[in-house]
Amino acid sequence: MAALSDVAREVLESGHLAHLATINPDGSPQVTLVWIGLEGDEIVSGHLGDHLKLRNVRRDPRAVVSVESGGRTNGLDHYLVIRGTARVTEGGAPELLQRLAHVYLGPDVTFPPPGAPGGYVLRITPERVSGVGPGVETP
Amino acid sequence: MAALSDVAREVLESGHLAHLATINPDGSPQVTLVWIGLEGDEIVSGHLGDHLKLRNVRRDPRAVVSVESGGRTNGLDHYLVIRGTARVTEGGAPELLQRLAHVYLGPDVTFPPPGAPGGYVLRITPERVSGVGPGVETP
Repeated sequence: MAALSDVAREVLESGHLAHLATINPDGSPQVTLVWIGLEGDEIVSGHLGDHLKLRNVRRDPRAVVSVESGGRTNGLDHYLVIRGTARVTEGGAPELLQRLAHVYLGPDVTFPPPGAPGGYVLRITPERVSGVGPGVETP
Repeated sequence: MAALSDVAREVLESGHLAHLATINPDGSPQVTLVWIGLEGDEIVSGHLGDHLKLRNVRRDPRAVVSVESGGRTNGLDHYLVIRGTARVTEGGAPELLQRLAHVYLGPDVTFPPPGAPGGYVLRITPERVSGVGPGVETP
């Protein structure tokens, strides 16, 4: 496990879209964009349905999250690329999505609507952090 | 091949960073951020060195490019995810990088410096376009 620096943690909790890459059954890359947050040392995303990305990481847990973090150094946009190992837990998606909706959509937003299924939480343990700008260095 | 809509073409030529996912020799996903442009129907990026991503696509040409394209619909950020087949050609990187530097850095920027090696151009033929917002629909 690579411990995340405080700066990296701040980036990952600041409402930047995450590009999530996983491996399809045929070995090809799959990419979707997701909301993320942190729970302890794991990067988490909430999913009401059992999407392809979740089925992918149950079979092959190797995943990459990349995030454009805002700001520039020498004209180059800042970003983080985090390789990690993913796991899926059942339930808790509505609560996580509501927490993330406040970050990504606004403090007054209600999402998902009441009665949403428990869904799934995707949890990624960071193993390597690279990129450009603040948060790349590990503590 | 999936023909790109005019809107998708505009997004891909507007200086948005591209998250490029390829497959490592061990089958894990690799993600780097690159500048992109279009040449005909191919998404192109220029590289002065023979990076891992280039070696990856020579072995397994399946690649995904994802781009945050700006704007929102119902609070959701617009983005494109483009699956495609990649190939690498030799030479031409300095000219392409100079063209892209004008888009990504500014009209007065000189990059790379004179005397840069010919390098490589990564060329991705789009096969499927998905995402949220303008450019997702194919013509």
